[in-house]
Amino acid sequence: MKIIIDAMGGDNAPEQIVVGALQSAKEFGVQIVLVGRGEEILASMRKNGWDTLPDGVEIAHADDVVEMHDDPAQVIHQHRNSSMVLGLRMLSQGEGDAFISAGNTGALLTAATLVVKRIRGIRRAALAPVIPLGNSSILVDAGANVACTGEFLLQFGCMGSLYAEYALKKKNPRVGLLNNGTEESKGDDLRKEAYELLKAAHEKGNINFIGNIEAREAVGGDVDVIVADGFSGNIFLKGIEGTAKYMSKELTGIFKRNIISKLGALCCMKGIKNLKSKMDYRNIGGSMIIGISKPVIKAHGSSDALGTRGAIRQAINAVNCGFCEAIKEHVSDMTLPKE
Amino acid sequence: MKIIIDAMGGDNAPEQIVVGALQSAKEFGVQIVLVGRGEEILASMRKNGWDTLPDGVEIAHADDVVEMHDDPAQVIHQHRNSSMVLGLRMLSQGEGDAFISAGNTGALLTAATLVVKRIRGIRRAALAPVIPLGNSSILVDAGANVACTGEFLLQFGCMGSLYAEYALKKKNPRVGLLNNGTEESKGDDLRKEAYELLKAAHEKGNINFIGNIEAREAVGGDVDVIVADGFSGNIFLKGIEGTAKYMSKELTGIFKRNIISKLGALCCMKGIKNLKSKMDYRNIGGSMIIGISKPVIKAHGSSDALGTRGAIRQAINAVNCGFCEAIKEHVSDMTLPKE
Repeated sequence: MKIIIDAMGGDNAPEQIVVGALQSAKEFGVQIVLVGRGEEILASMRKNGWDTLPDGVEIAHADDVVEMHDDPAQVIHQHRNSSMVLGLRMLSQGEGDAFISAGNTGALLTAATLVVKRIRGIRRAALAPVIPLGNSSILVDAGANVACTGEFLLQFGCMGSLYAEYALKKKNPRVGLLNNGTEESKGDDLRKEAYELLKAAHEKGNINFIGNIEAREAVGGDVDVIVADGFSGNIFLKGIEGTAKYMSKELTGIFKRNIISKLGALCCMKGIKNLKSKMDYRNIGGSMIIGISKPVIKAHGSSDALGTRGAIRQAINAVNCGFCEAIKEHVSDMTLPKE
Repeated sequence: MKIIIDAMGGDNAPEQIVVGALQSAKEFGVQIVLVGRGEEILASMRKNGWDTLPDGVEIAHADDVVEMHDDPAQVIHQHRNSSMVLGLRMLSQGEGDAFISAGNTGALLTAATLVVKRIRGIRRAALAPVIPLGNSSILVDAGANVACTGEFLLQFGCMGSLYAEYALKKKNPRVGLLNNGTEESKGDDLRKEAYELLKAAHEKGNINFIGNIEAREAVGGDVDVIVADGFSGNIFLKGIEGTAKYMSKELTGIFKRNIISKLGALCCMKGIKNLKSKMDYRNIGGSMIIGISKPVIKAHGSSDALGTRGAIRQAINAVNCGFCEAIKEHVSDMTLPKE
């Protein structure tokens, strides 16, 4: 298996990406292609004790880099020789099995759609991160599509269900529609349309649709796949992140208050470490870009070596489990007849 | 000052509502009208050691009760003699200064709009809870209006700003538009329209609009008024509640792990209690229903005596600070010319 990695994307590129990739190549026994400025990649390697490229690791040189402020719509034209676009082209041409970037999310979404292409019949690609609270549910869409139709949400639910089944090994995953109440009549017109479509898919036996779910319960693990438009999904995800960050900061303050509280923290250290580790994005991996014909992963923008490792492990799992093929196989179940 | 209370609304009615009301009447020195089934109210009083009605407390008998499953649109017709509708009618007729109910939220919103009426020029009433994290920002709308126009959001921002200034004593409150990114171009058509209107209000000096704000930062206290449509506002609020609940549960587990961790918890008890108290809705009060011509408060559905007390304190503050009058005075600043 060969994983293609954008060595230039993210806050800690290229050094941390390179280190994470090289360590993972050895740990997981996979081939790695580092795409980016050859000199900078080699310098990062040397700085961290690698004098030569290890077996199974190659560099694909790309002069240009997509920056965070670049307009996603322009990237494949104005930055055709960037590490991101070149890496996606390599994936598209079969020179690797999955692609990872920690760079500009919008650019990655657009470029993946234009270069690697969506699965035939899939209307929109979506960002699908795992929510680490509760029982590790998957959220589709977390921000790729601010304006959605009922059919998009149907497809998010069906694709999310296949991802949960294949990649997260969940049996008969529970699909819930993120809504402002649990009753069937709740929500705006989009939610009502999506509800009907998801219910019909459930009745045909294609998914296990459990109905509407409120944000409070969606956090707690009462669901495996959370279906949302990209706007409210983004607010849901970032609200969780903000709350977790706020509470962690408050707790740190409580523990550091005085010598007694520091002692207290010491007594609970193991449990605190477990919780921290469970909520650490670096152990979870990135967000799958779901609906693209091959596995493309958006790694966290602040990925370090450990975060890069998490994304690589996720990519390996995505390739092995074959969820892209599963979506291709079931795409007729999630497509509405054209009017 | 006289506060009218729906004694029959919420999970713990009437007993906890009655106890909270009677205790608060004494503590805050206000008059209270308990609206509901007289016999049940008297029984709750006797059970808790009151043999007679204290000075300044009266009962307004109402036979009927609005239930959680009642259709909001039908309530003022089908339940015209309910404690909720009677209480609102009393408020409307000047027989009290504010109304509190812990009952059916949708019914309260609709009945308040139909009985007490919106302030002239205000298009929609909105639910405006205080988010207790960070610096106690106010969220408008938290779920009353799933479908909004740009003008609604403009009004939510302006009304929220006045509430923050008058009731929460914030100077020049920062108004942010909840969005999936901070750049001006972010969001769907509704967000783009609202952004322009809020920016224009800022330029006229009516509000202090700080632009778009992401959910992560909105939690942390970088803003005083969070403007949202009721759908995404509801998801934002409940996502925060769910995350806080999840983390509290995990922490309890950590502390209760073994004898050592229990000792650790003991060492940090003061800080933990402070955080718990800060995040306890009972100390914060309910959600103001903003845009109605007199103060109407939706108390938490699970309000106990302490929660009732919090809502009463909030009602007293709302009456004293005069924010309803302030909205009336400034309504021309937040109304678009009719086409």
